[in-house]
Amino acid sequence: MPTILDGKRVAKELQVELKARVDALYLNYVFPVLATIRVGEDHAAVSYEAGILRAAKATGVRVRRYILPADVTTEDVAQLIREINADALLSGLLMFHPLPPQLDEAALTALIAPEKDVDCANANAQSCYIPCTAEACLELLHRYQIPIEGKRAVVLGRSRTVGAPAARLLLKDNATVTVCHSRTQNLPEVTREGDIVIAALGRREMIDAAYIKPGAVVVDVGIHANDAGGLCGDVDYASVGALASAITPVPGGVGSVTSTLLMRHVIDGAERNAK
Amino acid sequence: MPTILDGKRVAKELQVELKARVDALYLNYVFPVLATIRVGEDHAAVSYEAGILRAAKATGVRVRRYILPADVTTEDVAQLIREINADALLSGLLMFHPLPPQLDEAALTALIAPEKDVDCANANAQSCYIPCTAEACLELLHRYQIPIEGKRAVVLGRSRTVGAPAARLLLKDNATVTVCHSRTQNLPEVTREGDIVIAALGRREMIDAAYIKPGAVVVDVGIHANDAGGLCGDVDYASVGALASAITPVPGGVGSVTSTLLMRHVIDGAERNAK
Repeated sequence: MPTILDGKRVAKELQVELKARVDALYLNYVFPVLATIRVGEDHAAVSYEAGILRAAKATGVRVRRYILPADVTTEDVAQLIREINADALLSGLLMFHPLPPQLDEAALTALIAPEKDVDCANANAQSCYIPCTAEACLELLHRYQIPIEGKRAVVLGRSRTVGAPAARLLLKDNATVTVCHSRTQNLPEVTREGDIVIAALGRREMIDAAYIKPGAVVVDVGIHANDAGGLCGDVDYASVGALASAITPVPGGVGSVTSTLLMRHVIDGAERNAK
Repeated sequence: MPTILDGKRVAKELQVELKARVDALYLNYVFPVLATIRVGEDHAAVSYEAGILRAAKATGVRVRRYILPADVTTEDVAQLIREINADALLSGLLMFHPLPPQLDEAALTALIAPEKDVDCANANAQSCYIPCTAEACLELLHRYQIPIEGKRAVVLGRSRTVGAPAARLLLKDNATVTVCHSRTQNLPEVTREGDIVIAALGRREMIDAAYIKPGAVVVDVGIHANDAGGLCGDVDYASVGALASAITPVPGGVGSVTSTLLMRHVIDGAERNAK
């Protein structure tokens, strides 16, 4: 049986550590505050917001919510982002997606200041933070003391916010890193080289036992609705779980850690400001 | 016999193209100018400067040379960099190395504005340009029409100015990219997976036939003095040349293209300014 890399457990452990950092900041009258912008009542945005509020509560981070009407203009949202950027009392800014179609999303995210961009939304300017999802993959490996140095790591996917930063983090930990994508030939064969496999292709249950070397550690970034009305990942959990030495479940794996890491970014920002 | 990826030939081809772009700029009274800073008479710096002046002459780029006394202070060099940053008539800035020991090199390179940083010297801010050496590797592959998409590429070395950007460029061209380094285990075996191998480990003639799959394309970034008083690379040319389908010589390979690509950056900068 593989080790289950339990995202909920890791999130709880992290929350205890982060709460202690927030308590220390409070003693110096520094209050980490996350500003959030939600436009309208989109179901996905409202549901993500609820998760953010839970993670904030668990760590002691305050949230200042801006909820704008669904017919707001790009210029009005832009003005709000500029005000948040300029407000030293706000440590981070998260804007929920999707935005209504009349808003110029690329132009708006491009306004978010790198030091406030806790969610790495701005594709034009390098955020001061590491994208939460990539960071969550490494956090799980670290907390379960999975050896990384000198190992072969295969990253499936090269997106700006997941695959590419996950590859950089694995390289920093001295793994030998291979990045695969939709144009990779013989993908099962290449993926079988991996002692560690990060699946972030966004294709439901595509990675089955044929892709995995026995004993490999498998981290599943995907999240999809399955036919039974539940959730599943990029990895076929049943067949891969039988081969892997460790694996993240979906749900309850990578996704359970990300909103807590977002709080870590807010706290990092507040600590940096306090210096 | 392998195809020789001839850097001098590629540089000449590039220079003809760049000269045409410079001529077009001249017609609009735009003159691409590279500012160079040399401190003292260090032999390596003087010799690199001579190469830069040749590449500039071949492409029509003007060079404004600043030559400072060896005992100059950090603040005086910093002031000069700030002036160059602010001068819209200067399209790029190159500071020669090594600097004398009294100068704070990291602090000085950190001052170079990203849009002037044609040599990607500033490690703190993302330059507007791709590091010349990494770019030269891809330029050689492109000019010789080496297929990249879907191929396995192995990059040996992960430095900020060579290995890491070479990996990014190969990934952009849809190669499946593996990055190796000093902590990689079974390096010959991993390197033998490569249809394309970029050697940038900085270890003299380390890569011999045991590392190379027959028919691979080998690009050698290394440059070292050999015992015969000549130059050699990271690759053992004799044994690898017998196996490879294509290979860069040292000298006359990657290194012969870099100073011409530096001129391309200066011209890119001038064109951007002219818009």
